[in-house]
Amino acid sequence: MRAGQGKAGEKAALRYQEIEAWLREIIMAGRPGQALPSEVEIATNFEVSRMTARQAVLNLMREGLVDRRRGAGTFIADNPLHRREGVLLSFSEDMKRRGLTPSSTMISSKKEIATSEDRNALGLKDPSSVIVIKRIRIADGTPLALERVALLTQCAAVLNEDLENGSLHDGLRKIGFQPTVASGWLKARLATAQEARKLDLPSKSPLLVETRVIEDENGLAIEHTETAYAANRYVVDIKLNCAPAVMAPFKAAPMAPA
Amino acid sequence: MRAGQGKAGEKAALRYQEIEAWLREIIMAGRPGQALPSEVEIATNFEVSRMTARQAVLNLMREGLVDRRRGAGTFIADNPLHRREGVLLSFSEDMKRRGLTPSSTMISSKKEIATSEDRNALGLKDPSSVIVIKRIRIADGTPLALERVALLTQCAAVLNEDLENGSLHDGLRKIGFQPTVASGWLKARLATAQEARKLDLPSKSPLLVETRVIEDENGLAIEHTETAYAANRYVVDIKLNCAPAVMAPFKAAPMAPA
Repeated sequence: MRAGQGKAGEKAALRYQEIEAWLREIIMAGRPGQALPSEVEIATNFEVSRMTARQAVLNLMREGLVDRRRGAGTFIADNPLHRREGVLLSFSEDMKRRGLTPSSTMISSKKEIATSEDRNALGLKDPSSVIVIKRIRIADGTPLALERVALLTQCAAVLNEDLENGSLHDGLRKIGFQPTVASGWLKARLATAQEARKLDLPSKSPLLVETRVIEDENGLAIEHTETAYAANRYVVDIKLNCAPAVMAPFKAAPMAPA
Repeated sequence: MRAGQGKAGEKAALRYQEIEAWLREIIMAGRPGQALPSEVEIATNFEVSRMTARQAVLNLMREGLVDRRRGAGTFIADNPLHRREGVLLSFSEDMKRRGLTPSSTMISSKKEIATSEDRNALGLKDPSSVIVIKRIRIADGTPLALERVALLTQCAAVLNEDLENGSLHDGLRKIGFQPTVASGWLKARLATAQEARKLDLPSKSPLLVETRVIEDENGLAIEHTETAYAANRYVVDIKLNCAPAVMAPFKAAPMAPA
């Protein structure tokens, strides 16, 4: 507790803890997807302000134990989706195979000045343009990820495809580009206030972020993408061979971090 | 800004922003590893309290732009280490190949009751015991990760090996177990206050967390590990083949999330 927060602050902090402990018991005993008491119900039960009730719920959301669906209340968080290792399915394809309905909210799609990361990833000169597509990726109504794709301007015709209900990679194949290999890296970072709002998360929630470059069948880098997943809703499976005690010298990673 | 925080609060918030903007300029113009002004210097320059100076630095640390080395001050953050894809090197081996000196601080190593996650991962009955080894993994003096390893009790003899300076996998090989394949998943979450302290991070910093099960050459699950990396210091490289439009049905992920 911060010094100088005073007696009232201390008392409020104790109340959060009581409410959190109570909610944790409900969560432990319950099942993913089960509705939790509303902020109004919590506030009434514990005779606290709605602000105090909300704070307790937000803490559990940041831990990933609780999820919120806009307009529908709070729920025990579903187990996160696992992306299987080795194969990159398009988001649409991946969700369909799980029996979920994929959709996207288009934030923007237009020609823009390439960032220095885009130029590095796609081997472009300074200055260059790229086609930038920003979407919220949604499964059964729950926002899973924010995605920013930068494509070579040769791929501009893909903007005529339906990128809200359809797959970008299907669109690229239609116009003659064959996405073949993806390489990149995974990191964790905190959501900005804007990102959190779009993903229906409390601010400063953790994100699992994948940066990747996709090559076509000729080894041409055509796509540079950052996908920022809500950490409580998506995890990435991995499979590794354990190195024997003696092996070939370490090769540097293929790309510098953003 | 929270309502009721008052004029003084607002003024302090504006000061953070000024200090942050100033530090961002230094960071943009500087190089990884370069020392940044101390909290005392910042406080003097901007005529603010040391608390206010610290808050600005903490914000930039949470973003991963600044790193702290205990006793040595704050620095422009190094680019994070990339783990190459496909092959699991032991931490010690991986660091040596990069020219860094690996070490570990042992937190505890003893027989414990297996958690339900341990039992699931290692195929154990309830109740069972496991050998639990908790270490802080360090590279050139910087803490990179917290690791909790649970081993079958058959591996207990590995506790006689030097696990502070040596490799656990080398130790397992010495006593007749051959770590062969690792499978698991990567997720992001926030550090607890205790984890943050051990990793020399501000509380609620993001962590990149890998959970994995390691099998020996006979397919026996011998090790269940959670490694929580400081997100600003470590990222994981991936390589994926893009799936063609039509492919085999989706196979469920091998394991349920923790």
